[in-house]
Order: sequence, then C-alpha cells, then structure tokens
Amino acid sequence: MKKYDIIVIGGSAAGIPAATTARKYYPEKSILLVRDVEYVPIPCGIPYIYGTIMDPMKNLIPVTKIGAGNKIDLEVSKVTSINKDKKFVTTEKGDAFGYEKLVVATGSKPIVPPIPGRELKNVFTIKKNSVYLQQLQDQLDVAKNVVVIGGGFIGAEMAEQCKKHNPIINVTIVEMQDHLLKLVYDEEFCILAEEALTELGVNLILSEQVKEISGENKVSGVKLASGKTLDADTVILGIGAAANTELAVAAGLEIGASRGIKVNKYMQTTDENIYACGDCAGKFSFFDGSPSGLKLASIATMEARIAGINLFKTRRVNTGVVGCFSTVLNEHAFAAAGLTENAAIAKCCEVVTGSAQAVNRHPGLMPGAADLKVKLIFEKASQKIIGGELYGAYSAGELINAISAFISKGMTAEEIAMFQAGTHPALTASPIAYQLVNAAEMACVKLDRE
Amino acid sequence: MKKYDIIVIGGSAAGIPAATTARKYYPEKSILLVRDVEYVPIPCGIPYIYGTIMDPMKNLIPVTKIGAGNKIDLEVSKVTSINKDKKFVTTEKGDAFGYEKLVVATGSKPIVPPIPGRELKNVFTIKKNSVYLQQLQDQLDVAKNVVVIGGGFIGAEMAEQCKKHNPIINVTIVEMQDHLLKLVYDEEFCILAEEALTELGVNLILSEQVKEISGENKVSGVKLASGKTLDADTVILGIGAAANTELAVAAGLEIGASRGIKVNKYMQTTDENIYACGDCAGKFSFFDGSPSGLKLASIATMEARIAGINLFKTRRVNTGVVGCFSTVLNEHAFAAAGLTENAAIAKCCEVVTGSAQAVNRHPGLMPGAADLKVKLIFEKASQKIIGGELYGAYSAGELINAISAFISKGMTAEEIAMFQAGTHPALTASPIAYQLVNAAEMACVKLDRE
Repeated sequence: MKKYDIIVIGGSAAGIPAATTARKYYPEKSILLVRDVEYVPIPCGIPYIYGTIMDPMKNLIPVTKIGAGNKIDLEVSKVTSINKDKKFVTTEKGDAFGYEKLVVATGSKPIVPPIPGRELKNVFTIKKNSVYLQQLQDQLDVAKNVVVIGGGFIGAEMAEQCKKHNPIINVTIVEMQDHLLKLVYDEEFCILAEEALTELGVNLILSEQVKEISGENKVSGVKLASGKTLDADTVILGIGAAANTELAVAAGLEIGASRGIKVNKYMQTTDENIYACGDCAGKFSFFDGSPSGLKLASIATMEARIAGINLFKTRRVNTGVVGCFSTVLNEHAFAAAGLTENAAIAKCCEVVTGSAQAVNRHPGLMPGAADLKVKLIFEKASQKIIGGELYGAYSAGELINAISAFISKGMTAEEIAMFQAGTHPALTASPIAYQLVNAAEMACVKLDRE
Repeated sequence: MKKYDIIVIGGSAAGIPAATTARKYYPEKSILLVRDVEYVPIPCGIPYIYGTIMDPMKNLIPVTKIGAGNKIDLEVSKVTSINKDKKFVTTEKGDAFGYEKLVVATGSKPIVPPIPGRELKNVFTIKKNSVYLQQLQDQLDVAKNVVVIGGGFIGAEMAEQCKKHNPIINVTIVEMQDHLLKLVYDEEFCILAEEALTELGVNLILSEQVKEISGENKVSGVKLASGKTLDADTVILGIGAAANTELAVAAGLEIGASRGIKVNKYMQTTDENIYACGDCAGKFSFFDGSPSGLKLASIATMEARIAGINLFKTRRVNTGVVGCFSTVLNEHAFAAAGLTENAAIAKCCEVVTGSAQAVNRHPGLMPGAADLKVKLIFEKASQKIIGGELYGAYSAGELINAISAFISKGMTAEEIAMFQAGTHPALTASPIAYQLVNAAEMACVKLDRE
C-alpha cells in the first residue's frame, strides 16, 4: 500500500487550497489529492456555461496544472472508505493509500426537495459534473419554457443565463419568499435585483410554492400551490446544497449542529488525524457562533487554508462564517457581506446604517461610468461594521471584499469614514462623492446624534 | 458686516467636504463658502480634459448644487485678508464677513522650477483654472511636439492624454529619476508603467534633467543637461505643487515643517478659531510622523472631515498621511498605497513582501478579463501591512482603497490571508487564485520560515 504524509479527498474550492497550503507550509511532505471526476467544473462558473462560456469543458479548475506546479500527486477515483484506525483510504478502482493526515473536502450536492415529479426527464439540478452540465446545455438548445425553482443566487444566475442562452426562451423563477435573494439583501436591494431580471425579460413569481412538477416521462408543466400551472419543458432546481457526509459518517466521524462534518476551530474532525473543510464541514456564524448552513467558495478556501496549515502544527483558528457574496444580473453587480439590517435586527442587535450612491467615475461622463450604491450596517453598541450591501458598478466585486475584511477586523464607522480612500476619474467616484466613506460618515452622524 | 458661524475659504477637495461635514454635525450653524473662481475644475480630472472629456467646462465640481443641497451660502471672490483678532475676512470685491470659526482650504499651486525659458509662451503648468486649461486645450489642437517635464502621476497622465488628444503629436516625458512614478512604486511596477506609455507611443527620457526651455517669445525646444535638444512647441510642467500659504502667513499663522500651514492633530492652526486642511495644510507621515509633502485629494477630504467636525467640539484626530494613489495608463490601472518596499527599507524598516498575479475573471475567458497583479509589503517586526502596489484590472481602484484601510487599521499578513474574500466569475479571480489573499499568504509563508 502506497503511503502519503497527507491525503486530500476532493479537488475543488476546498480540496485544492487545502493541498496547496499544506505544500507551502510543509515543503517536505508527500501529498496525494484524490478526486472523483477527471474534469472539475469551476462551481460558481456553472451558470455562465449557459449564456456566456457556452461549453462546460471551458469552465474547469486546472487541477492537473496545479498538482504539477505544487508537487501534489493526483488520483482520479471515488474514495469508497476511510479506515481511521489503520489510517488508509480505499478507492473505487480498488487501490488503498495510507495517510498520516487526511483532509476530507467532499463538498456538497444539490438539495432535491420532495416535490412530486422531481424524477421526470428535463428536471435538472446544479451538479458539479461536466457530463451532466452538458446535458442541460443540450436541453436549453431546444427549450421553450424554463422554470427555475428557487430565487437565491444560483436561481437568479441560472435564470439570467438561460435568457442570455436564447432570449426567446420563456424563463420564470418561482420563489417562496416575497423577494429574490432575501437571505442576503435588505428589501431595497432585492427590488433592484428583481428589476434587473425583469428588464431582461425573466418572469418572477414570488411568495409562491411549487406543488408538483407534471408530465409523462418528461416535464410538461409546474403546478403551483395557488393553483396556477406554468408550461415547462425544462425545470432547474436552485434550492441550495447539502453537505456530502456519507463517507465521513461511514468512517465513524461525527456530524455537527449545522449538518456538516463536526470540526473544532482548527478544522479537525472528531478524529485527530482527519480534518474537514469546505461545503462538507460544519460551520458557525462569525457573529454569534450559531450553526450556519452557508456554503460558499470564499468560506471553503478560508477553511482549507486553516486545515492545510494545521495538519502537523496548529497555527490557525477558524473565527466563523461572515458570508460574502457577489454576482452580476443583467450587467449590474450585486454584492453583500455579513448580516443584512433585517438579519441583525432578528438577532436582537440594535443597528445603525449608512447609505451612499454615486456614479463610479468623475466627472460622470468618463467612460465606463455606472452607479454604485453602498449600504453599511453597524452594531450600535460597538459601532463596528457587521454588514454591507452593494449594487451597480463591477468594482463592487472588490469593494465587497474590503467590507468583508472590515467586518472580520471589527472596523468601526469612524474608522471607515476616516481612512484615506484614493480616487481617480477613470476608476472611482470623486473624493467628495466616494460611496464607502460617505456611507460610513452617514452612520457616524446618526451615532453622534444618539 | 455679515457674520457667519463658519466660513470656509476654498471650494475644492478640502473646502467642500469641510463645509458639508460641518453641516452634517452642526445642522443649526450658518456656513459660508468662499472660492476665488466660479467654475472649480475637478483637480484629478484635469489630464482627462485633453484626451477623454475634451472640454474644461465638463470637468467641474458642482459647487452650486452642493451648496444649495447643504444650506451653505456661496461667495465667488478672492479672500484678500484674514483678521484673526477681530475674526473677519475681506474679499477682492470689497466685502467683509465675520466668522466664529474659519477653515482655510486654499489648496496649492504648481511648482515652477527656475528653468531658463519657463516664462515663454506655450509653457504650461497644471493650474486649477478652467480658462487657463482651455488655453492648453487650444494649444494641443495645433501642437506637434509636446515635452512633459516630470514623470510622476500628473506628468504620466498628461503625456498619455496628449497622445489620446491626437496620436500624431510627438509626446516626450523627461524625468530626473531612473524610472517614472518612482516615489510611489517599486521598480517592477515602474517598468510596467513605462511599458504602458511606450506602447502608446510616448517617448521616455529617464535619468535626465532639463537645462533650458528655448525659443523666442514662444517655446521651440528643450535643452537637456546631457546636451541633447528636443523639438518642442508645447511644454507642460508636471513637477508637483506647493501649498498656498500667503493668506495664512499674512494673517500671522505659523508655517510647519512640511511647508504647509502649521496644524495640530485636530487640524487647528496656531489660532484656535482657525482650522486648515487639504493641500495648504501641514502634513506628517502615518508611518513615522515625519513631515510629508504629499498632496492628494484623498488626504484633503480626510483632513476636511476632521476640520469640519472639530470646529465646535473636538471629536476627530489626524493620524497622518498614508498615501493612496490610482491611475490608468493606456487602459492598465496602476495603484499604490503606503510605503514601497524601497521606501520602507530606506526608513530602516525590515520588510516581508508577498505578490500574486492572476486574471480577474474565472474562467479567464469570461468577458472583461484582465490581469491583476498585487504586491503587499509588511513590516517584519509587527507583521502589519505598510504598503501595497497594484497593476492591471480597473477593480484596482477599489482594491487599493481596501489596502489603504488595512494599513490604517494595522491588519497583519495573517488577517489578510484569512478574511473571507467573495469571488465571482464575472467580477474577480477565482477563490483559488484570488490575488489579495494569495499575496498575503505568500508573506505568511515567509514569516513562518523566519
């Protein structure tokens, strides 16, 4: 049996950085990364296969290149068991590999709610499998009526890209909540997202549940709880994802309160030589330590860099899930980090908010000008930032990361209002109109008047 | 004599936020803003008049609108004197206005070095005056050979925009240092800036001084110290700027070590009722407290928000100049904050750096893809970030502000490596390749091996 110092199970947003981090900090250790498919799709790139990239095989993580560049051995096979007492794994190909330290990064699978008709042909989920994703591509080539069930990020992005795949496709999102993206945004931003999609011609049915997917063999319609029926030749389920824990459970590892593999703050499972990270691992909120069901690449890579560094020497601690999201809908960026105002209030946190909106160029007739709207949410008691919501210009993709870092570091409204923000005519708002600083200043004014 | 609670002298990047901040925190106070020209150019927009906006009157700060929106009275006239004992100012129009608190935000003027021939026709500086800026526009319409003296940001931007004004103009930058932008970048980024300009057809003459501007009545050439002569029908001086302190000196206010109006950390001058902010005010380094000659809109607005809030109740403290810059040269963004590696070493600071480069989309064939290169500089002893340099994608304009805030807040390499950075195919690099985090991680690896 071949033995490695480190084995990583999983080759996506958690497995790869776990392995490359281990390589950086343990240059002498031998590392094997085992993944179950040869071609690993970029998870957040999946919607863009359909309206932008147009080919699942062009949306791949370059695992082979990363492996070669980091002296990481690669194996393509499904891991069938972990023997934690004798410290080896077995694979579907019939091999066994011994380990000193093991990282479980088995990811997640799409949730399929128990809707009658879910097994019909042309009902799709978002599986991280290129062959399956090509089948959806082929179906969209002939689709006339697509119903997307679920109006979170993945549902909104899939609907947008289906419309871009072919504008004559009739695309409808059915969402239980009264707004799209409601877990991530306060209402005013949800409405902007809804406007972005309706302008593109996507139909939105809110505050509505799916009762049944109808059809014989293949989908022909979607019946709603209100009694209405939608024509549908294609249904896409964008409900969310559940941790892949079967392998870990079979090996005797415990499952935690958030339904992921139980880990301590060093990302160590209930077996001291096995670590878990990414979608398969248990999570807790940065804000109050409560179990968190969030599954994001940003969390996976962060956890992977904790697991990878801690394998032989504990040096990093997980401080919990902040949540940092970004997307583009109909050429408008949407991004958010931390808690919404509503979520904070629901956690009994008194908040102060500040907002600012301005064009991201100065003067506004500079090329590339787009509006950028910033809302910041602060805990009143500590004056620290706990959330941010952005809309508009594409630079929101970097700006939300600044806000995520500010949340982690506990920056106050005053500190954000007072840092020196560089501005440039071709890149940002003017120094007088700079949104991030002005939103923080607005919160400072409110705090000052308390 | 009309009396105001607050008078602000200056209507640009310092005067306006000083007045609007005072309005926010002192809603009952009367405020007058006096500026010497009716139309105030956006300072950092000036180069873009010539190759992008094509009209000085379209590059204006909307002072009248801001005044009306904030209940700030406006007066267009040059302030001719400050009587600090009787607390009033006089203007060129012959008026006098009494004040309780005064903010001096008189800005800066271009430095004109004592080069023979500097008084010739068609030798221009970068004056914040729309009429003068139109004269330069008219000259560029007929120019064939433009020599820009000085290869800092303003010189590089002016050269780039002259070439965009008309590609057949022969544009040459003459710079004393061996690289462009050397005060702000380490060598590898300076070289990228030089490549960006030479690709556009700008000629660069480095490590060279101007001995004389030659011509009869109007410019005909530029003689260099090495003996070479350049044909020139237009010369633009982009050497830097000096604080406008005449009014303050005449009023008996002291001047500080950095040649600006002496202020304490509350932005108060040597007269307790007079504050100063922006280019005219004295500055010190965030890093070691040494006098700083930096003059930037980002610093001006920060200082203005200190002065404005402190007028009647001291609530904010100036922690010194970080320095945050961004620009675009030939479609590539360049940005920097804090100290370069070289500047830090020159201050006897031992440093650790980390760099990362990746395309800002994932997969890389997503629309809008551009390389983004990040270099971070950390103080070895504290592991805190003290500088950052960026090249490439336009999102650098927001990313550099994140870095500037990280510097202010004293974030460590470990904290930057471990925050949760959101990523999206259409907006950023992949979670695995995300440059800011990977650059910090690279520094963490080096620190770990020490």
